Amino acid sequence: MKIAVDGMGGDNAPAVVVEGVAEALKRYPDLEVLLVGHEKRMSPFIKKYGLARHSRLTIVHSEQFVRMDEPSTTAVRAKKDSSIAVAASLAAKGDADALVSAGHTGATVAATKIKMRMLPGVDRPAIATIMPATQGPFILLDVGANIDCKPIHLAHFAVMGEVFARLAFSALRPRIGLLSVGEEDVKGNDLTKESFKILSDMPLNFIGNVEGNTLFHKAADVVVCDGFVGNVLLKACEGMAKASMYWLKEALSKNPIRMTGAILMKQAFKELKEIGDAEEYGGARLLGINGICIIGHGSSTPKAIRNAIRVAEESVKFGMNRIITNNIAEAGIGTGQNQDKKNKTSEEK
Amino acid sequence: MKIAVDGMGGDNAPAVVVEGVAEALKRYPDLEVLLVGHEKRMSPFIKKYGLARHSRLTIVHSEQFVRMDEPSTTAVRAKKDSSIAVAASLAAKGDADALVSAGHTGATVAATKIKMRMLPGVDRPAIATIMPATQGPFILLDVGANIDCKPIHLAHFAVMGEVFARLAFSALRPRIGLLSVGEEDVKGNDLTKESFKILSDMPLNFIGNVEGNTLFHKAADVVVCDGFVGNVLLKACEGMAKASMYWLKEALSKNPIRMTGAILMKQAFKELKEIGDAEEYGGARLLGINGICIIGHGSSTPKAIRNAIRVAEESVKFGMNRIITNNIAEAGIGTGQNQDKKNKTSEEK
Repeated sequence: MKIAVDGMGGDNAPAVVVEGVAEALKRYPDLEVLLVGHEKRMSPFIKKYGLARHSRLTIVHSEQFVRMDEPSTTAVRAKKDSSIAVAASLAAKGDADALVSAGHTGATVAATKIKMRMLPGVDRPAIATIMPATQGPFILLDVGANIDCKPIHLAHFAVMGEVFARLAFSALRPRIGLLSVGEEDVKGNDLTKESFKILSDMPLNFIGNVEGNTLFHKAADVVVCDGFVGNVLLKACEGMAKASMYWLKEALSKNPIRMTGAILMKQAFKELKEIGDAEEYGGARLLGINGICIIGHGSSTPKAIRNAIRVAEESVKFGMNRIITNNIAEAGIGTGQNQDKKNKTSEEK
Repeated sequence: MKIAVDGMGGDNAPAVVVEGVAEALKRYPDLEVLLVGHEKRMSPFIKKYGLARHSRLTIVHSEQFVRMDEPSTTAVRAKKDSSIAVAASLAAKGDADALVSAGHTGATVAATKIKMRMLPGVDRPAIATIMPATQGPFILLDVGANIDCKPIHLAHFAVMGEVFARLAFSALRPRIGLLSVGEEDVKGNDLTKESFKILSDMPLNFIGNVEGNTLFHKAADVVVCDGFVGNVLLKACEGMAKASMYWLKEALSKNPIRMTGAILMKQAFKELKEIGDAEEYGGARLLGINGICIIGHGSSTPKAIRNAIRVAEESVKFGMNRIITNNIAEAGIGTGQNQDKKNKTSEEK
């Protein structure tokens, strides 16, 4: 099993990425890593973590890399030799079985779409992330690969999310929910109302609309939404978790009695923080492309990188894409390509 | 000052509403309340809270009321004599200066639109809510009055939100943000990208896109979004806050040491819970209609009802609608009505 890792991707790359790769190589003896990045920049860390001349590590040099703050629209086209483009090429050619990057999300989506192409029958990729809920985690997709969605895209996301839930939760018949603003089918915006109809007719365990307030009680195993709403929601949860920790600290440091209490509960707070911590889940899955790609958070720790490599391996072994392709075909919902073409023509007029 | 209160609106109506009205009448000596609802159902509580023959309370009987679980599309049209319809009529005719309801949000929006009409120059109403952030609260709108929005609607929301921020925060030049998925103007969906352009040209302190993760650090005083995204976000925050409390309790009850710590911090947890508590803010404002309407949470407490009545009074005194109408006219952005008509015609073909 060979995994291509974007050595330059992430807020603290390449240091954190190389450390994560070292941990993964130590822990998974069957694993080979193709570490893609600027050799000179990576080499101090490769030495530091004892990876020089490691038998299961290949360094693949790339001259360029995409900075986290670059506009994604131009980053991939302008930088043909960026680490993410080279890593995606390796996966596309079959030199690697999967790809891991904690770098620029937009660039990763663009590079994989261009190099690896889409799965047959799937129009658009989706980023699926695992979110915590009181009754166990659930899957939310899309959280940002595809900002403007059509109903057919949400239908594809549902199929892909279902397969992912079977892998991640060993769920036999995952409950699929549609993120909306009311439980009845007539509630929602134009996109969700149309999507509701399509999802109702599909061979899925579709449970209908799910609202924001029941999400975190695991109202469904898989919740689908367009990439705009999903991304806003994901980031808002992140922001709210941070704000909550801020308020908690503030409330607890107001007087000595509370501070004593806080000391007694230090471990509890640590556990609490871990609930929302994405590093255990090993990053988000980019679903719908013809290959396996795991997207880590920009602020990934070495442990998060190691776990992302692990889930990449699992996804390959599970044969996720073969199942997705089958299920998309079986669903018989077609693609939105004809519709896309029509729209484009009318726009071009 | 006369406030019409929907006596039948809310999960625990009429009991909680009548209690809240009693508190408001006691606290605000200049206030008159028109309590609208089913007289027979309300009367035990009117007696209980000592309001029988109260000089500043008028009971207005309405035979019907809208249940919380009714579809909003039919509720108002089918129930012409519902408490919310009657209360909105009182406000429309000038018999009341403002309207307060903790009932069915969709029905309240529909009733006020039909009876009170829109402000000149405003196409659609928006529900504005005050949300907590680490650096002080901010205003989010629309959180559900208008599910499918056009860019011009978001522009109107920005003007209305700005006026509300001046009232609520005494902010001289409120910072207006646009909820999106990246900070650059090119990031977002079709709606936000177009809205960004309009907002940039308006006489507002527009600070650009705001992302979910900075929301709760008060990235802006006012954040505008379409009613679908806002409603999902608002409910998700509610759900996440509840889930966090669940996790906190669970983590703290794991062993006696932690439980001791928790006892020492009981007051701190109470404070923490209050941060997210909407009852202090006195409900959400329905902006854009030709009148003052405050929408309480379905689970409003008597205190929340009392505060909603207070903010209704403040909004009337501040002359919010006069300022909104002026500012909408000054912004010179027009309305979307012509566009709406065009779309309708093409749909009807």
